Amino acid sequence: MARTSPLCRERRDRREGDVSFSFRIVAQQPDTSARAAAMTTGHGEVHTPAFMPVGTQGTVKTLSPGELEEAGVQIVLSNAYHLYLRPGTEVIEQAGGLHSFIGWNHPILTDSGGYQVFSLADLNMVSEEGVTFQSHLDGSRHLFTPEKTMSIQHDLGADIIMCLDECTNYPCSRGEAQASAELTLRWAQRCRQAHARLNAVQDRRQALFGIVQGSTYADVRAHSARALAEMDLPGYALGGLSVGEPKTAMYEMIDATMPYLPADKPRYLMGVGMPEDLVEAVSRGVDLFDCVIPTRNARNGSVFTHQGQLVVKNAEYARDFQPIDAACGCYTCRHFSRAYLRHLFQAGEILAPRLATLHSVHFFMELMKQMREAILEGRFLAWRREFLHQYRGSLKNGDQDMGAQRNPFIGGEI
Amino acid sequence: MARTSPLCRERRDRREGDVSFSFRIVAQQPDTSARAAAMTTGHGEVHTPAFMPVGTQGTVKTLSPGELEEAGVQIVLSNAYHLYLRPGTEVIEQAGGLHSFIGWNHPILTDSGGYQVFSLADLNMVSEEGVTFQSHLDGSRHLFTPEKTMSIQHDLGADIIMCLDECTNYPCSRGEAQASAELTLRWAQRCRQAHARLNAVQDRRQALFGIVQGSTYADVRAHSARALAEMDLPGYALGGLSVGEPKTAMYEMIDATMPYLPADKPRYLMGVGMPEDLVEAVSRGVDLFDCVIPTRNARNGSVFTHQGQLVVKNAEYARDFQPIDAACGCYTCRHFSRAYLRHLFQAGEILAPRLATLHSVHFFMELMKQMREAILEGRFLAWRREFLHQYRGSLKNGDQDMGAQRNPFIGGEI
Repeated sequence: MARTSPLCRERRDRREGDVSFSFRIVAQQPDTSARAAAMTTGHGEVHTPAFMPVGTQGTVKTLSPGELEEAGVQIVLSNAYHLYLRPGTEVIEQAGGLHSFIGWNHPILTDSGGYQVFSLADLNMVSEEGVTFQSHLDGSRHLFTPEKTMSIQHDLGADIIMCLDECTNYPCSRGEAQASAELTLRWAQRCRQAHARLNAVQDRRQALFGIVQGSTYADVRAHSARALAEMDLPGYALGGLSVGEPKTAMYEMIDATMPYLPADKPRYLMGVGMPEDLVEAVSRGVDLFDCVIPTRNARNGSVFTHQGQLVVKNAEYARDFQPIDAACGCYTCRHFSRAYLRHLFQAGEILAPRLATLHSVHFFMELMKQMREAILEGRFLAWRREFLHQYRGSLKNGDQDMGAQRNPFIGGEI
Repeated sequence: MARTSPLCRERRDRREGDVSFSFRIVAQQPDTSARAAAMTTGHGEVHTPAFMPVGTQGTVKTLSPGELEEAGVQIVLSNAYHLYLRPGTEVIEQAGGLHSFIGWNHPILTDSGGYQVFSLADLNMVSEEGVTFQSHLDGSRHLFTPEKTMSIQHDLGADIIMCLDECTNYPCSRGEAQASAELTLRWAQRCRQAHARLNAVQDRRQALFGIVQGSTYADVRAHSARALAEMDLPGYALGGLSVGEPKTAMYEMIDATMPYLPADKPRYLMGVGMPEDLVEAVSRGVDLFDCVIPTRNARNGSVFTHQGQLVVKNAEYARDFQPIDAACGCYTCRHFSRAYLRHLFQAGEILAPRLATLHSVHFFMELMKQMREAILEGRFLAWRREFLHQYRGSLKNGDQDMGAQRNPFIGGEI
């Protein structure tokens, strides 16, 4: 890869630090690393800590953009891998970009597709150049290089775009974790350069985030974070977590990484998670999250309440005329009973996953809002104690088998 | 059946003519039988001519009650057969009735279940007493008598309830049509008496409509209509049409029936229909309609426009960034392109049938509203000419095979 000239370098740096993206910490909770911030993008501000519902294929499954707005969603995640394969990047570019295509005039983050290539696609083969894979839709062969994923994400036009990374499975050996983290670093450098070249032609004011890897090895993660931080990217993500490791390992890896990420940049924990994980990670200084849990579980008849998860499709709710969560003000809880939801699930009605998803997304948004307000008012520690006490004194066990194979509404979100 | 005493009879008549149900004609189009009316029920007024979206299992498939309201829906149809089998009449009664259970605080009409027993259930056996059938869900055996269907519909609590009828197939012999129409008349008399007895205990202010049968035999329909009219019910329906007979036969049967139905009572054409059928039937004096066409076709990717049906899931719309119908003001047309709809259908996303259904229900509501306004302003004939000219110069042929078997969103509505 040719070195960039000092002039190009300056130009690129200026563009990467474009006024259209900024991150400003507005409060810090003493005795924790929790902070509240304002993240500005070309499509508006995101108040962090924030949770991004997952809109894999250009729609947060079952919900309309209007419903997302009403639930308080500030930013959604979408997926370069899926959109590249279907409907194709050109269609979305012709539509005027992803915001216009999906009718969402607020911030969007696109993942590079690295995670999907490794988890969904067939026959993926990694080389220094990139990853070759077969589409999970039609078996067609494709090559994702760092440069290619930048080009795709440039065309899609999300406000935040992600570097191509290699996501390791759990467990993985120290050697594999090191090799994978190193490859991810080299790819990040190439992404940074490709992004700068694309911006030199047409600057879409996108913020490129790097991704820390290193599996469950604290020193590998520390090294990965340090090296990424030197690239001076506008934000950093923790990848390769929530892939099967124990929760304690996940918390340890967050702790091992945080000291090496610049405090004045956003930190994004990818693919997390359960409400208790969000609380723990916010305590440790994470600002941004995405996860399929609220939406996928809802489609499967399991919804979140302040007392834990509740499998509303179960027979025990057939004559329960209470709302899902009496403390919730969402459209579902204002208008419908658990008995009606249970009936809709039994009858296989599309309104079932719709109303359940609407509730759970609202629940996650309220959770983030409560954390932010607690941080702003300096009472996050007390809030956390109370929330976890109530939540863990759970009505239902959230870890039961959801019978995902038998449910027609599930579909794929990753 | 014991005769009712004169006192009981007076009481029943008073209740059947309860102030909570009334029908008042507000305009009549000269040179046609088209009229505009106000039908008052215990849950509000319906401005006719009106179309009822079908909410078979207590939900108009894919839509929320809020969306129905926004689309201008005044009254929905639901189904005694389906709700009796699942979730069970008692659950809905415990919930405070159907309106409360499904979160729809506007008028509801329930069909008796006669049509479903004959079309969906297994092994149905008709006798003078009623019809014995096996549930299409679990094979359990049930008997629907006129009295039983009144009791079920009383417990559900819809504003308009329907007599149990026997719906003939097409074609059917004159002898079968006569026998079936006579049985339906005897059942109507028993429904009327059972309804009165239930009201004597607790009057739920429901209007009982009778159903004219007689297949495609004009004289049989005329006899059926005359005999029903003598029962002095608050409204009358034309059943057994739109079951495969030619459109001309359907229009002839409407013409053959109308003279015998009291002009000051609502007339409801069951299971109809396509936009052109609605226009033709309104011209002939019909006030009320229901049909699965807008919702079922939408779930299958076919939507209605002022230029005819458009199969938005087809490949030709992959890069069509226009709305479904530029003349439409619905949420779907205000925010999304045909290309996005096509993508959502391709990707199997629940938002696809949602947005398509929302549009088509809105289209049907606008159609009825336009007809009513034209009648009120005495320009229905000109409106009809213009609408049919534009609609029949159709973009797409609406009679194509929709491939119902391959579509995951279809489900059953009847």
